[in-house]
Amino acid sequence: MLLCDIGNTSYHFLHGKRRYKKSCVDFDPSTISQKVYYICVNPKISKKLNKLPNWINLAKFVKIKKYYKTMGIDRVFACEAIHNGVIVDAGSAITVDVVRDGQFEGGFILPGLQAMKHAYTEVSTALDYRFNFGIDFLTLPRNSQDAISYAYLKVLYTEVSAQNLEIFLTGGDAGKLKKVFPNAEKKGKLLFKGMKKIIKKVGLE
Amino acid sequence: MLLCDIGNTSYHFLHGKRRYKKSCVDFDPSTISQKVYYICVNPKISKKLNKLPNWINLAKFVKIKKYYKTMGIDRVFACEAIHNGVIVDAGSAITVDVVRDGQFEGGFILPGLQAMKHAYTEVSTALDYRFNFGIDFLTLPRNSQDAISYAYLKVLYTEVSAQNLEIFLTGGDAGKLKKVFPNAEKKGKLLFKGMKKIIKKVGLE
Repeated sequence: MLLCDIGNTSYHFLHGKRRYKKSCVDFDPSTISQKVYYICVNPKISKKLNKLPNWINLAKFVKIKKYYKTMGIDRVFACEAIHNGVIVDAGSAITVDVVRDGQFEGGFILPGLQAMKHAYTEVSTALDYRFNFGIDFLTLPRNSQDAISYAYLKVLYTEVSAQNLEIFLTGGDAGKLKKVFPNAEKKGKLLFKGMKKIIKKVGLE
Repeated sequence: MLLCDIGNTSYHFLHGKRRYKKSCVDFDPSTISQKVYYICVNPKISKKLNKLPNWINLAKFVKIKKYYKTMGIDRVFACEAIHNGVIVDAGSAITVDVVRDGQFEGGFILPGLQAMKHAYTEVSTALDYRFNFGIDFLTLPRNSQDAISYAYLKVLYTEVSAQNLEIFLTGGDAGKLKKVFPNAEKKGKLLFKGMKKIIKKVGLE
């Protein structure tokens, strides 16, 4: 079975146990002739895929009512993968979603690390620091690096910890956030797990 | 007395009771011949002003040890203006600083509203929303506008409120944050108050 999760920058494939990526800029999806089950948050690529009958959009098989209309389909499928937990997906955005007893409770969206770093340096070159993921969240910062790290990461730390649920870290920057949530599980294939669950549930394979 | 607070985008003057702004791009400070007491966070303009003997940099008269070396001088002077309180300065960045019994306790820095909105839309056009300043901070969001507003504003709301101190709102976007902190005092001249205090303290006038 070939699965594909399409984000703003890449096509992320799972073929058996093998994962690989293709760039959204130059990959041509019509070069694949076998059946592909996919989800896609990229409006331009969605248009292309609608015309390819072997690309099957899984979005239509999920009960979107449980979530909300404009919620990214990647977040929806990550939520579908679990019954209880907080999902922190750190990619071009950092999304946080809470699922309790199979019900979506809500979530929020921060800009991803790169976008946030860029936002600070756009404001002032004096704020051009890397984020300190090992920051002490209990004391107000007294240096510039911590002043931006605290502002960015504290809402993540506080809100995620407050749920008292298992934490699932996913996305390209999951490794960096492991320092903020040392007890979290890193789950690189969470979205794919959600996709497989839906495929099975609706009897597609 | 002529005072000037120079930020990343404008020269902000106070002449008697009159306040006015000049753009950092095209204003020539050598066109002023009278004495100007100033603070400046803009490195390019600092260089220019160093060569003008009637422009007097107040930064050297403040005890920077109370703060930290790389702290913006605008934040330092706002802190100097008060004895107890939380200062929220909403400009190109939003800075939050806590002063208790005349001591600086620490602070943090978020990108300003414009920079943050830009960061979200850079991540995805699907995140192009205005911030909802009237958001309910007690419930996890279930729509896109609240999902970004919560992520951005909750740390501000929580950290500022937790201090149990008077809240001073200043900067160009102070009006918008009044919705987040309805009991806060809007103080357009806080920096100038700090500047006057230092001028008096060190006997410059």
